Amino acid sequence: MALKLYVDRMSQPSRAILIFCKMNKIDFEEVRIDLAKGQHRSPEFKEINPMGQVPAIVDGRFRLSESHAILIYLACVFPGVSDHWYPADLFSRAKINSVLDWHHSNLRRGAAAYVLNSTLAPVLGLPLNPQAANEAGKLLCESLSKIESIWLKGNAKFLLGNTQPSIADLSLVCEIMQLEVVNEEDRQRILDPHLKILQWIENVKNYTSPHFEEVHEVLYKVKERLQRRLSSGAKLNSKL
Amino acid sequence: MALKLYVDRMSQPSRAILIFCKMNKIDFEEVRIDLAKGQHRSPEFKEINPMGQVPAIVDGRFRLSESHAILIYLACVFPGVSDHWYPADLFSRAKINSVLDWHHSNLRRGAAAYVLNSTLAPVLGLPLNPQAANEAGKLLCESLSKIESIWLKGNAKFLLGNTQPSIADLSLVCEIMQLEVVNEEDRQRILDPHLKILQWIENVKNYTSPHFEEVHEVLYKVKERLQRRLSSGAKLNSKL
Repeated sequence: MALKLYVDRMSQPSRAILIFCKMNKIDFEEVRIDLAKGQHRSPEFKEINPMGQVPAIVDGRFRLSESHAILIYLACVFPGVSDHWYPADLFSRAKINSVLDWHHSNLRRGAAAYVLNSTLAPVLGLPLNPQAANEAGKLLCESLSKIESIWLKGNAKFLLGNTQPSIADLSLVCEIMQLEVVNEEDRQRILDPHLKILQWIENVKNYTSPHFEEVHEVLYKVKERLQRRLSSGAKLNSKL
Repeated sequence: MALKLYVDRMSQPSRAILIFCKMNKIDFEEVRIDLAKGQHRSPEFKEINPMGQVPAIVDGRFRLSESHAILIYLACVFPGVSDHWYPADLFSRAKINSVLDWHHSNLRRGAAAYVLNSTLAPVLGLPLNPQAANEAGKLLCESLSKIESIWLKGNAKFLLGNTQPSIADLSLVCEIMQLEVVNEEDRQRILDPHLKILQWIENVKNYTSPHFEEVHEVLYKVKERLQRRLSSGAKLNSKL
């Protein structure tokens, strides 16, 4: 029985796992859990992940949630995964774990809350919250600056000075990609000062082509629809 | 040269690492980075951890930050660490990683923000924020309920149905212990409905005795001083 991935491509950690599996030729079945329809809160999905969050996986009798734990599990359990994604060397591995841990309370918290409160809230039946978006935007910009000055220091192509990407590159870049759906002016204001970040995103895109663009297609479509609705002044609703 | 731990015992992840090292007889030197004095922002400490956060470690020429990454590194690198802390079995390990990842955006986010905004902010030169404390309190209570119903399901002594603690038990319990410093009435209101959580905290305390209480002594002293000041109506300041 193939590995089952319970995902929504609108979720950034779901996309990271999809790209990882495609890059490493891991055979899987994609089960869509539509967040906009609240399918992550259904009793059926709670059987898979009682926390009610995507992504989650079922591998045989084994169930697992949380994207970083899933990426590490897949990298360790599937034999064909190249070492650079999650090196066997304990020191390299520890540094990648450290980036992934930092991500939760910094880049993810900033980016996800910014996108939600500035743009996506109505899709999930919530009100926009400019004040929360503003605070999250600050954390996001600080996080981008720190990534540039610490993990992309010098001429590093990928995080931690690596010449090939790790699961940390994939997780963090998919997070930043979520900004595609916000107002183009705001997105540029946030990202354009960070030249190293922009180059790093390109590096990850190129390395994981064509899977990166294919998995992100849904995001680009939502972006287009949101822009059309915003320019026509229509009210956002859940039918994106 | 012994392992150096850069910590402040007022920081919950710092305490988790101290207890872990003491339990596993890992020789270390404790270097105090006083958060209330802003020492984590000093140029000297930024040489150790450019992110300016405790805990951080230096092991020979290797530097590492983020408490979960540090706990995993110590468990994998030091030969005397009992397997139950971070099992070699990939499935058990994946489940522990999942708990640790979940912790960041749920229990930690709720508990740390609640304690900060309800109690500790003035110590760090910040204003109290009852609205933020209220929102964080909700996330904290939801997180406690989820831990009880999912990872402490049945008669589990420790998380995930284990009979001995893992690094996840240590990290999460040290987080909840931070509630010691809040108003006793509020602490009881939050914790008392969660009988399984209370029993689990006792289980971790007993298993890691006497190190647990020794490492938490500073927290109990701060609690006493805060209570004395509150009962005398004095204004809180940084000199705790």
